[in-house]
Amino acid sequence: MFLGRVAGTVWSTVKWPEAKGLKLLLVRPYRLGDLPPGATPTRGGGTASEPTDDLVVCADMLDAGPGDDVIVAFGHAARVALSEQLPAGAKPNVPIDAAVVAVVDRVSIEGGEPL
Amino acid sequence: MFLGRVAGTVWSTVKWPEAKGLKLLLVRPYRLGDLPPGATPTRGGGTASEPTDDLVVCADMLDAGPGDDVIVAFGHAARVALSEQLPAGAKPNVPIDAAVVAVVDRVSIEGGEPL
Amino acid sequence: MFLGRVAGTVWSTVKWPEAKGLKLLLVRPYRLGDLPPGATPTRGGGTASEPTDDLVVCADMLDAGPGDDVIVAFGHAARVALSEQLPAGAKPNVPIDAAVVAVVDRVSIEGGEPL
Amino acid sequence: MFLGRVAGTVWSTVKWPEAKGLKLLLVRPYRLGDLPPGATPTRGGGTASEPTDDLVVCADMLDAGPGDDVIVAFGHAARVALSEQLPAGAKPNVPIDAAVVAVVDRVSIEGGEPL
Amino acid sequence: MFLGRVAGTVWSTVKWPEAKGLKLLLVRPYRLGDLPPGATPTRGGGTASEPTDDLVVCADMLDAGPGDDVIVAFGHAARVALSEQLPAGAKPNVPIDAAVVAVVDRVSIEGGEPL
Repeated sequence: MFLGRVAGTVWSTVKWPEAKGLKLLLVRPYRLGDLPPGATPTRGGGTASEPTDDLVVCADMLDAGPGDDVIVAFGHAARVALSEQLPAGAKPNVPIDAAVVAVVDRVSIEGGEPL
Repeated sequence: MFLGRVAGTVWSTVKWPEAKGLKLLLVRPYRLGDLPPGATPTRGGGTASEPTDDLVVCADMLDAGPGDDVIVAFGHAARVALSEQLPAGAKPNVPIDAAVVAVVDRVSIEGGEPL
Repeated sequence: MFLGRVAGTVWSTVKWPEAKGLKLLLVRPYRLGDLPPGATPTRGGGTASEPTDDLVVCADMLDAGPGDDVIVAFGHAARVALSEQLPAGAKPNVPIDAAVVAVVDRVSIEGGEPL
Repeated sequence: MFLGRVAGTVWSTVKWPEAKGLKLLLVRPYRLGDLPPGATPTRGGGTASEPTDDLVVCADMLDAGPGDDVIVAFGHAARVALSEQLPAGAKPNVPIDAAVVAVVDRVSIEGGEPL
Repeated sequence: MFLGRVAGTVWSTVKWPEAKGLKLLLVRPYRLGDLPPGATPTRGGGTASEPTDDLVVCADMLDAGPGDDVIVAFGHAARVALSEQLPAGAKPNVPIDAAVVAVVDRVSIEGGEPL
């Protein structure tokens, strides 16, 4: 999993039935240098510096929005996360390989080293 | 998953039966710096700047073409995407690990920051 | 798997039931240049130089803490590690794709080359 | 999957029974800059410029050789590819995570841009 | 899979029962530039130049040691490799995602190009 900030939203018309209605977000991963010691990202206005330039597209069912700091998981873990909130009987076989699994409240970087 | 632009097509004569007839595309992933705030890629003529130099080969059953912006998924998600449009009874065990799962209509990058 | 040092902790309020209560750590992977020949990282005060700037979020059930050197596994291996210490009957289907699988006592770099 | 050129061969004496007899190749991934517009790699003498410096080891059952341009798949897809040509009854549980799934005839890079 | 050289050993006291007794090695991946044309790495004294600075931790049941050139597989392939040499009845569900699957005898880089 990685820690990242929501940078935007993707809209698409052609999707598989299982993925229909899923919100797709663009998330930028943080690197350690982006996080000052004691950093405390908060919803909608993180105190951390800018994250990296990479972009991951992931599904979101936790109502995350631009500026939020989130944790993103890949592969089977992402499909488990999505299937647990789908209506009973829905198949976990969504064609999705990344999903937001947590919205971050606080990040603690330990030690006095200049991280 | 990642957001990328279709850059080309690959032809091959030797393929496994399950993969026969599948269109294989070359897709270049975007980085955040490639997308201006409010960027709105469109079919066949994206407004975004040039994506990265990486190349991913993926199967496509959504009729995407060069210049289209697409979302590509890996692994099991890719095989799910492909099997859902195969004739009933066809095995999902295609030797494919990447597939186009959506053709992008619009990408919204939030905030006024120079992304 | 990779060898890394625990750099911090992540708190989040919104998580899936299966992941509730799991401690989430930020871990920085080491590169070879970070480890002097004969390096012997120890709990809470590694002798190795600073690891890389990458950040991986992983679950921890081994009571690792900041400064510890750990081994992190991905995917199915991570869920196996977590499920083996969950109460009997708990599902291994946690939406987690990375976990601490060992706390490192000692790393031996062989040869006299300047690694 | 990725597009790469076969750069060499690996021999090893110690292998699992399931992997015995499998040819192992070294493949170098291409980046987009390596492929001129309209590039047409051919067996044994690609027209593309040199691919990247990365190296992937993969199993090959398609009789690819040094200089050939191939498509390589990872994980389950690789084992599916290998198992489909193994004698009936052979287990797909080979300890292999990458395999050649196609030998490339032609690559078409669209657009007049200097790719 | 990748080709790498064993650089060291990791000891840890806290491990899951399934992983107990497994030797854990640090392996450095090679890049193509590290291998001279016709390179022939040998056990305990490779002729190739220095591999990259990356480090992968993997389990080893093939008695590889520092200086050996090995092939490492990830994910399910690694667990298959490990389970095939475990006592009958042992579960393949080890919390391990990388393992040595072959000790390399010889690597052949084709062509006269300066690889």
